[in-house]
Amino acid sequence: MATDKPARRPRAETPKGFRDYFGTEVTERKAMLDAIAGVYHRYGFDPLETSAVETVEALGKFLPDVDRPNEGVFAWQDEDADWLALRYDLTAPLARVAAQYRNDLPSPYRRFAMGPVWRNEKPGPGRFRQFYQCDADTVGSASVAADAEICAMLADALEVVGIPRGDYVVKVNNRKVLNGILNVVGLLDNHSPESREKERGIALRAIDKFDKFGATGVRELLTTGRKDQSGDFTPGAGLNEEYADIILSFLSGRKQDNAATLSHLKGFINNTVLGTEGIEELEMMADLLAAQGYGPDRIVIDPGVVRGLGYYTGPVFEAELTFQITDEKGRPRNFGSVAGGGRYDGLVERFLGKGQPMPATGISIGVDRLLAALRAKGRGAADTAGPVVVTVMDRDRMADYMGMVGKLRQAGIRAEVYLGNPKNFGNQLKYADKRKSPIAVIQGGNEAAEGKVILKDLILGAKIAENATLEEWKDRPAQVLVDLADLVAEVRKMLAQ
Amino acid sequence: MATDKPARRPRAETPKGFRDYFGTEVTERKAMLDAIAGVYHRYGFDPLETSAVETVEALGKFLPDVDRPNEGVFAWQDEDADWLALRYDLTAPLARVAAQYRNDLPSPYRRFAMGPVWRNEKPGPGRFRQFYQCDADTVGSASVAADAEICAMLADALEVVGIPRGDYVVKVNNRKVLNGILNVVGLLDNHSPESREKERGIALRAIDKFDKFGATGVRELLTTGRKDQSGDFTPGAGLNEEYADIILSFLSGRKQDNAATLSHLKGFINNTVLGTEGIEELEMMADLLAAQGYGPDRIVIDPGVVRGLGYYTGPVFEAELTFQITDEKGRPRNFGSVAGGGRYDGLVERFLGKGQPMPATGISIGVDRLLAALRAKGRGAADTAGPVVVTVMDRDRMADYMGMVGKLRQAGIRAEVYLGNPKNFGNQLKYADKRKSPIAVIQGGNEAAEGKVILKDLILGAKIAENATLEEWKDRPAQVLVDLADLVAEVRKMLAQ
Repeated sequence: MATDKPARRPRAETPKGFRDYFGTEVTERKAMLDAIAGVYHRYGFDPLETSAVETVEALGKFLPDVDRPNEGVFAWQDEDADWLALRYDLTAPLARVAAQYRNDLPSPYRRFAMGPVWRNEKPGPGRFRQFYQCDADTVGSASVAADAEICAMLADALEVVGIPRGDYVVKVNNRKVLNGILNVVGLLDNHSPESREKERGIALRAIDKFDKFGATGVRELLTTGRKDQSGDFTPGAGLNEEYADIILSFLSGRKQDNAATLSHLKGFINNTVLGTEGIEELEMMADLLAAQGYGPDRIVIDPGVVRGLGYYTGPVFEAELTFQITDEKGRPRNFGSVAGGGRYDGLVERFLGKGQPMPATGISIGVDRLLAALRAKGRGAADTAGPVVVTVMDRDRMADYMGMVGKLRQAGIRAEVYLGNPKNFGNQLKYADKRKSPIAVIQGGNEAAEGKVILKDLILGAKIAENATLEEWKDRPAQVLVDLADLVAEVRKMLAQ
Repeated sequence: MATDKPARRPRAETPKGFRDYFGTEVTERKAMLDAIAGVYHRYGFDPLETSAVETVEALGKFLPDVDRPNEGVFAWQDEDADWLALRYDLTAPLARVAAQYRNDLPSPYRRFAMGPVWRNEKPGPGRFRQFYQCDADTVGSASVAADAEICAMLADALEVVGIPRGDYVVKVNNRKVLNGILNVVGLLDNHSPESREKERGIALRAIDKFDKFGATGVRELLTTGRKDQSGDFTPGAGLNEEYADIILSFLSGRKQDNAATLSHLKGFINNTVLGTEGIEELEMMADLLAAQGYGPDRIVIDPGVVRGLGYYTGPVFEAELTFQITDEKGRPRNFGSVAGGGRYDGLVERFLGKGQPMPATGISIGVDRLLAALRAKGRGAADTAGPVVVTVMDRDRMADYMGMVGKLRQAGIRAEVYLGNPKNFGNQLKYADKRKSPIAVIQGGNEAAEGKVILKDLILGAKIAENATLEEWKDRPAQVLVDLADLVAEVRKMLAQ
């Protein structure tokens, strides 16, 4: 290490766990986010863009499934000793903004935000350390009307990007109902909320994984613990079988309609204060949504929804896509969750101090999951149209070729002149092929002398392009000789075919 | 420090040097970038979005005005020992991508990128540590046609966002010409490019600040050094007065037209090989641009353009806005530079290794500067239209109010129901005012019984809103009583006025 080595070439590699997005990958995400932003705007939500960087103390420690402090974020110490970090979601920055600008912002404040977030996690297949979220939140309203509105807007957003009604459902539950159940089974004592915190955490994480582990796995985790396929043992929450039964029956408590579900739930919560409050809130949300025409075909009460995050305090939501896809092993399965959220009445108060409550509720759409869903439904964006390529037959006449391409662009037609080494004409055709170009414009000395150009229809000719020599190429029927003066009009005509 | 203190409340503060963007600030930037993306697309450029994070080795050390390694970037060590950093521009990630995907990308590869970059600099007024750039580059073309195209596209981009022709000029110079001059004055020996590197650096930085320091300041820096107003002394490059004259005469060498400028330049470069090559390239660029109709009213050869970055190897560009604004001291001054770029034939080779050249050229638009220019020209986006606000007169009828707002939204009208505490009606009106709402919808018990609603034109009524009681409000002439069934049609009618 002490010897002077010549500087090593840097590796040309995307950092582990990150990825690059090219062409259509960028434009299809943008189109989807633009459509969602249109819905958010219509609902009166205003855009907010905070910086990627926050202080570690402002971010707090709210990542799910993370026990050690600062784990899960990319953090570093600034020169003035503050610890800074990349945001891991868009909710923590909103809580900071809502506290910081509380005297300037309208109250309630409806805001939406779209952008990347970062997680310092072990990269894995399909698991990236930077990904997009698309959030909408209302801060400063304690009313369940705010929660209902968020759910209606989420349903509208899914439809506007191309998920047809019937292919999604927004499931709604309430943490208060769940807490009522935890009261009943002895995992939550309202007078001593810290007691049995560990067991309660185990139970909540187990409940949140009902889809993954099924009733048997969740029962193991609620009682004596569960050994997974690798032999790893997860300790259980220590409930007896009777209490585990209560929770499992609660989780699968979605009935034929909301009224039946609510009546079923009432049987569980034993008139606990929290549970009763939670059920009343669910009833109000269902009524408010029905008044706007959002019936249970779109938004439904489902006690199975828990949401992993510890900071939810009331209604919780999850948008699930109900159509089937084929998994990597060829088995059909439901596409599953693409968005989730809920009410978090304590997050802004963290900044303002106890006794200065600032209720809030919101939703976060998993942008990559939703894009994957659109692709699975054949609703992904079509490939961007390739440019018309003006080839270079005579490098001394580059000004002529650039004049052609300039005319096409001024007419609004996407066009390029070939900028590589023009010596090998085959390379120019390969280039046009790679660019998915619809038309190649060709002008050799003869054509130039006559004031003509050749237009070659590459959509027809694509298949032979790879090995074509210039002569073969010029003989194809899919090409026309036109007056240079008619270049724009003739290109338009060919593009329209 | 050893005592157990209760957790301190986190400060609700944007981290130093960062900022938050609200509402119109977000939408006007987006509108500008969308318009520029349209131009880039038309020119055949494809979008690329790399992650915010790169390895430090991939980023390299190319920040201007930074001497110490890793200074100027936000960096941290990853768990697997790699150093990671936030990108400080969009060019370094492009160089990495061009090397990494060279077998898959079309060649030449035209790409554009828009997004935030980060600089770990001392924050100052108007100086932020995160800001947007908007770049377009062509990788894999050694032809000056690629440089000319970038300049034409830049001119088009400025016009499309609202900078009229005549209010901007794209200035073009060539580093080779400058290096020819440096040959002449003894600051560059082509056979020993490392000699006098320090003095050359001083001279280049001085030249780049011609606008700021004027001829006198630059002369001091080229010769014996310069003391600034604070008394700080910057050492000079040690040239004699005769050589300083040559450089200063070169810098102010822009003549009445490109031909005159080029002829003037030829007198300086003493037939040095580099200088002659540079002048030929400038001539070719001017010809190619003229062929597309881009005359010196839009794109002009100006030897005063240097661009600070060390990695440029050929043509360099700068877009300057030529209209005047008033500075903070009330004096008129030119708006100045909003974009810059040039050819950097060595950046991708850094990844590929010596002998695998990959020429490249491109431009970077300073998004915030350009937005400021548009605002100075009165071309900033108008404030986003506020929503129609449905007020809540009777909290038990929230379902009715949400039904109204639902109908308005379904009709494509931006609308909100008031979600704060409805007790104080004045607060609802203040809220509508803050939201720049055009119309308040009001339905008390009497109106409800008759199947009516009141529509209040808030654009007329805005001024009295702050102190209005409900009764005063209802008496204003700018309100109408309409049938609830006609809500959407009547709101449309009022909005259209």
